[in-house]
Amino acid sequence: MKAPLRVGIAGLGVVGGGTVKLLAHARDLLRQRVGREIVVTAVSARDRAKARGLGCEDVPWVEDAADLATRNDVDVVAELIGGEDVARRVIEAAISQGKHVVTANKSLLSKHGTALARAAEERGVALAFEAAVAGGIPIIKALREGLVANRVTRVQGILNGTCNYILTQMEASGRSFHDVLAEAQVLGYAEADPTLDVGGFDTAHKLALLTSLAFGTEVDLEGVTTEGIERITPLDIVFAREFGYRIKLLGVASATARGVEQRVHPAMVPLDTPLADVSGVFNAIVTQSDYAGKSVFEGRGAGEKPTASAVVSDLVDIARGLRLPAFVRPAAELEEARRSPTDDRVGPFYLRFQVLDKPGVLSIISRGLARGGISIESMIQRGRAPGESVPIVMLTHESREGDLKAALSLIAEEEVIMEPPCMIRIERFQGDK
Amino acid sequence: MKAPLRVGIAGLGVVGGGTVKLLAHARDLLRQRVGREIVVTAVSARDRAKARGLGCEDVPWVEDAADLATRNDVDVVAELIGGEDVARRVIEAAISQGKHVVTANKSLLSKHGTALARAAEERGVALAFEAAVAGGIPIIKALREGLVANRVTRVQGILNGTCNYILTQMEASGRSFHDVLAEAQVLGYAEADPTLDVGGFDTAHKLALLTSLAFGTEVDLEGVTTEGIERITPLDIVFAREFGYRIKLLGVASATARGVEQRVHPAMVPLDTPLADVSGVFNAIVTQSDYAGKSVFEGRGAGEKPTASAVVSDLVDIARGLRLPAFVRPAAELEEARRSPTDDRVGPFYLRFQVLDKPGVLSIISRGLARGGISIESMIQRGRAPGESVPIVMLTHESREGDLKAALSLIAEEEVIMEPPCMIRIERFQGDK
Repeated sequence: MKAPLRVGIAGLGVVGGGTVKLLAHARDLLRQRVGREIVVTAVSARDRAKARGLGCEDVPWVEDAADLATRNDVDVVAELIGGEDVARRVIEAAISQGKHVVTANKSLLSKHGTALARAAEERGVALAFEAAVAGGIPIIKALREGLVANRVTRVQGILNGTCNYILTQMEASGRSFHDVLAEAQVLGYAEADPTLDVGGFDTAHKLALLTSLAFGTEVDLEGVTTEGIERITPLDIVFAREFGYRIKLLGVASATARGVEQRVHPAMVPLDTPLADVSGVFNAIVTQSDYAGKSVFEGRGAGEKPTASAVVSDLVDIARGLRLPAFVRPAAELEEARRSPTDDRVGPFYLRFQVLDKPGVLSIISRGLARGGISIESMIQRGRAPGESVPIVMLTHESREGDLKAALSLIAEEEVIMEPPCMIRIERFQGDK
Repeated sequence: MKAPLRVGIAGLGVVGGGTVKLLAHARDLLRQRVGREIVVTAVSARDRAKARGLGCEDVPWVEDAADLATRNDVDVVAELIGGEDVARRVIEAAISQGKHVVTANKSLLSKHGTALARAAEERGVALAFEAAVAGGIPIIKALREGLVANRVTRVQGILNGTCNYILTQMEASGRSFHDVLAEAQVLGYAEADPTLDVGGFDTAHKLALLTSLAFGTEVDLEGVTTEGIERITPLDIVFAREFGYRIKLLGVASATARGVEQRVHPAMVPLDTPLADVSGVFNAIVTQSDYAGKSVFEGRGAGEKPTASAVVSDLVDIARGLRLPAFVRPAAELEEARRSPTDDRVGPFYLRFQVLDKPGVLSIISRGLARGGISIESMIQRGRAPGESVPIVMLTHESREGDLKAALSLIAEEEVIMEPPCMIRIERFQGDK
């Protein structure tokens, strides 16, 4: 049998701890499937007590995780610390010492992915990150290998379990975003500071990586237009349902004639399409490509076990000798991402206006939209409360996003409009059944 | 740049032709992503005119496909002829000459997969077959690599597009199986002899391969209990809907305490689970595994382009140097499949009895079921037609399949029972949202 693959683990939190446990749990299985062992030969973490809890207190301990890189008994450094400063130092040290790197760090890769990939390729080591996007779904492998012969034209995904859990609960219970968020925090499904998740930023990190894999462009986090779910109300969820949609936080990357469009925002998803039924903490990704057509991947996005499953699959690839460029094509050949402005995007929209219930309001809104060249496909004005605030809800025909925004900002100035208008994009899916 | 990977293509039908076209279409893309070219250096087919139509009339032509194996300018033989006799001879010749093999031949592999895998591994060549199961879905790669650290406990799939198309059309139109089948034959979605598809045999071939990949057992086609969709009626589809189900032809493999259970049959799938919404010619597979949990994969199952996408992904793996055992663990270590008898399976069932509408009929049926230890969860007896045939439909509680069958065969002997009772298994999905 081949010599074992020796792994140094940086970080023994949820992901690092899960990886240590899985390597022990699946030891015989992996030996049989891989033809060699994968052993943890050094660990590093903030708190040494973690190692005891994981039964690896006898594994050599390294105070500074970056020192894993200099050890002769380490072939791969698994950076599972998260965050950006220490993690970056650890990965750079590993690459410069000729060690392979496995990481789950979407935040770091979304900012420095191209540079790290280039460094790894120059040094001839792997930079693998299956665990960075949708742990339970082998989507990186699908884009890098399974769909390798395809020109991918679109990636649409539910990439953040926290947001999907909150939206699912809001729909089920009719409660507000803030109520459900508070409960999710108590249950451990949301962080004390939830901004990274609910603001759409975590989804943007993951989307930026998928975009590069799909289109062969440099990782361009700054090119992602990002909106969170904080302003979604139970009312919008109910109206969505009436029109045949469900609201999901999506990450969408499209290869358009004008360049690469990357956007993260709450979207109206048609009820009979695959992403509409993805609920709770599940993630899912739909790809559209020239030969395979539509492919859908769904699974658990986060959590100890699915993420560990992804980390170990990367370790197995390295143990089996697979050495692929991080972003499919060599990093030096990634193209600069020409950004397609989201204002130029054309699509249908859901609009909700909170208006003073008095005669003539609808005509003010419809005149404002008509002036902007926006035409209405359907409208609901339900209930009466003279002199009070009531909702007027509309779906538009295909409209240019920039034109719609301009029209809305003019309409918002009217005295009868009580709140900034709510605008939610309606997402289309190609190649549906 | 590394030397090109040289491919000999056996068979220029839908799949072989599609592969030739895709290799030409994606030539630049593949060169960039793989770092070497993949070139067709020899072809063989029944009809030489095919090569002209594909623009490869200048590629050396081989009369007997097995002779591709002996050519010095061929590294990989792509067996895309289908069928069993010639194909087997071509694959065995390739392996014995030390050529890698890529094939889409589920029928052959389901019967001789273990032996061919062993031969390939002894000779140190790849035997790759991503195109054999659900072309547009990289499910072989997911089981062999993405989920490699997992103990898979269950695989449930819609694996035959023809059956799924027929069932989808039957539901949409209310027409009979035979009507819809005839139309599907005209449209080219079903073969002139449809038995392989509608009888469930094609699904069984694919399931047998997935079972081996998932559980590490020898390919055991004979262990698959197989029923087709020929007896499904529009009436059952309507009742299914009333109870909250949709009828799908499923392939299911489970690792049970008693052994490996492999079954192909029409099943009632709960409407809110992922397989229920897979319609038309799409395929989908749900896996349940210990670390990743539930994973769902959906995509086009067949057709020129998705299948070519899968064939070329295998060629790319070979070009990149990936050499994995065909069924995850080495073929010599595959375990004999201990079969778990389907009669021992316990689950809920849908039953439909066509009875003579007269008093006392329900009591005859319920007494017969009670004697067999089968208890009823719900019942519909709708419409009256005294003296004529009417349906009585029931859902059972969890029942042992063998016990139910015994009870049904006794009930079927009663004079008031006008047709053999219809029994459809209700499929449960673990780990649902």
